[in-house]
Amino acid sequence: MIKFKSLSAFPITPSDSEGRVDVAGLRGLVARLAVAKVNSIGLLGSTGTYAYLSRSERRRALDAALDEVGGQVPVLVGVGALRTDNAVRLAQDAKAAGAAAGLLAPVSYTPLTEHEVFEHFATVSRESGLPLCIYDNPSTTHFKFSPDLIGRLSRLPNIVAVKSPAPEPQAVAGHLADLRRNVPEEFSLGYSVDWQCVEALIAGGDTWYSVVAGLFPHTSMALVRAVRDGNVAEARRLNKRLHPLWGLFTEFSSLRVMYASADLLGICRAKPPRPILPLGDAARQRVADIIKTLDLQ
Amino acid sequence: MIKFKSLSAFPITPSDSEGRVDVAGLRGLVARLAVAKVNSIGLLGSTGTYAYLSRSERRRALDAALDEVGGQVPVLVGVGALRTDNAVRLAQDAKAAGAAAGLLAPVSYTPLTEHEVFEHFATVSRESGLPLCIYDNPSTTHFKFSPDLIGRLSRLPNIVAVKSPAPEPQAVAGHLADLRRNVPEEFSLGYSVDWQCVEALIAGGDTWYSVVAGLFPHTSMALVRAVRDGNVAEARRLNKRLHPLWGLFTEFSSLRVMYASADLLGICRAKPPRPILPLGDAARQRVADIIKTLDLQ
Repeated sequence: MIKFKSLSAFPITPSDSEGRVDVAGLRGLVARLAVAKVNSIGLLGSTGTYAYLSRSERRRALDAALDEVGGQVPVLVGVGALRTDNAVRLAQDAKAAGAAAGLLAPVSYTPLTEHEVFEHFATVSRESGLPLCIYDNPSTTHFKFSPDLIGRLSRLPNIVAVKSPAPEPQAVAGHLADLRRNVPEEFSLGYSVDWQCVEALIAGGDTWYSVVAGLFPHTSMALVRAVRDGNVAEARRLNKRLHPLWGLFTEFSSLRVMYASADLLGICRAKPPRPILPLGDAARQRVADIIKTLDLQ
Repeated sequence: MIKFKSLSAFPITPSDSEGRVDVAGLRGLVARLAVAKVNSIGLLGSTGTYAYLSRSERRRALDAALDEVGGQVPVLVGVGALRTDNAVRLAQDAKAAGAAAGLLAPVSYTPLTEHEVFEHFATVSRESGLPLCIYDNPSTTHFKFSPDLIGRLSRLPNIVAVKSPAPEPQAVAGHLADLRRNVPEEFSLGYSVDWQCVEALIAGGDTWYSVVAGLFPHTSMALVRAVRDGNVAEARRLNKRLHPLWGLFTEFSSLRVMYASADLLGICRAKPPRPILPLGDAARQRVADIIKTLDLQ
């Protein structure tokens, strides 16, 4: 896992109404990310609708992305599933295909206990041999990791990183300190929730797992470079400039805004998997205006 | 939909570690329910692990249950799925097999809007022709229905009932009144959350969608009969007697307790789908003691 201020870009996975992945569209998205020299690609994350796609379609998407980047950029891939046996199979597929790591979320229907989540991760790790990033995303999985559980998982051989939802800026340093106390030194601590990630990087987080970077990698790389160069004021200025976009993300979800953006820009023609619906016309117009005003790229 | 104080019994769906349904075990469970003359069977509900089973296994379970009851008891069946197209297929399967109705939960990963849930239900209803019961279960789906949304759905041709989580006893009359104002007179208002359902029936709820009845139908029918006969004091006494069981349900979840109970009684040998784990030895012993002390049957 990359251990310096880095950007992991999470593209959408264009697919048709039956859940068949548009491989050409995905290649186009991934090629943009390679050109922008993001540090890694987070394929089939939550915004990449992994939860809505079959095992075979997930394998098609992974093969296409790996072929497109041709080893230039490490590809992390979502291997989460509701059943442990299915998550094992997906992680085995990812290992066989050549993914750098798997992103494993504790997808739930019946709420899970800490013990159950520990055993789920231990089983997927042991039976796949794939390096794993703990995908902590309570807004979709409805499971909340404690620092103690992350600590116990971090001591398993192939669990190498965690992607946590970034807390409010004033809480992020404490959050990082709580985790650092529990994990080995080389364990990577990264963050999602785009609008709070610049502060998480400034506070010492290793990676920004970014939705916006999946479509606008240049804009996102500029923020990460400013932090990496120690130019905190510039990073904050750039982040503040994106506030209208963050407002759309909180109002409509970053997933819906990214689908509208990709369509507006003609990068790919895809709708989110139903029951998720595309944004309505008024919201879509606001997205178009903000892309233009902020010159997102 | 049955419109008087009635009991819908939700059995577990025994399956092996690969998600293959134990059809003989399921037939045994369903036969017990038919003998006890429950008013309906809620096959493949949340406790019936519908979310963890493939379409073909769900069809196998449904065919076996329908064959076993031979028309003696209406069978409602869970048709929920994360994708709308998959929910449509499951509802079409249920209609073709001869289920009395489908139980449709708004299963989510990306959090859904009211508009998306309305369209999801409208599509499944329209494309299957199956009568549907709205399966409102926010602890697993993470979507909360408003009375207004239930009202709008209740005016679609084939949406005939709602199964709501029963609120605290002091709130249930108000909850029922809120719903009644929004739905047609013949629309059925029923409740889950076993330990609060007797009060919901007393307050005027139509149906108790019951986990405990899936394994202990005689014990559960006694409560429903007391309410139906207007013997409120007796219904409350019987419900109070079950408090130690309700305590186990809230501590470990009714699903885990039901798996342990079925195993302890030798009714079927099944473990919940992993990552969900069977209860540990100490908890299992407490379940055994309570089954015996309360003479559950």
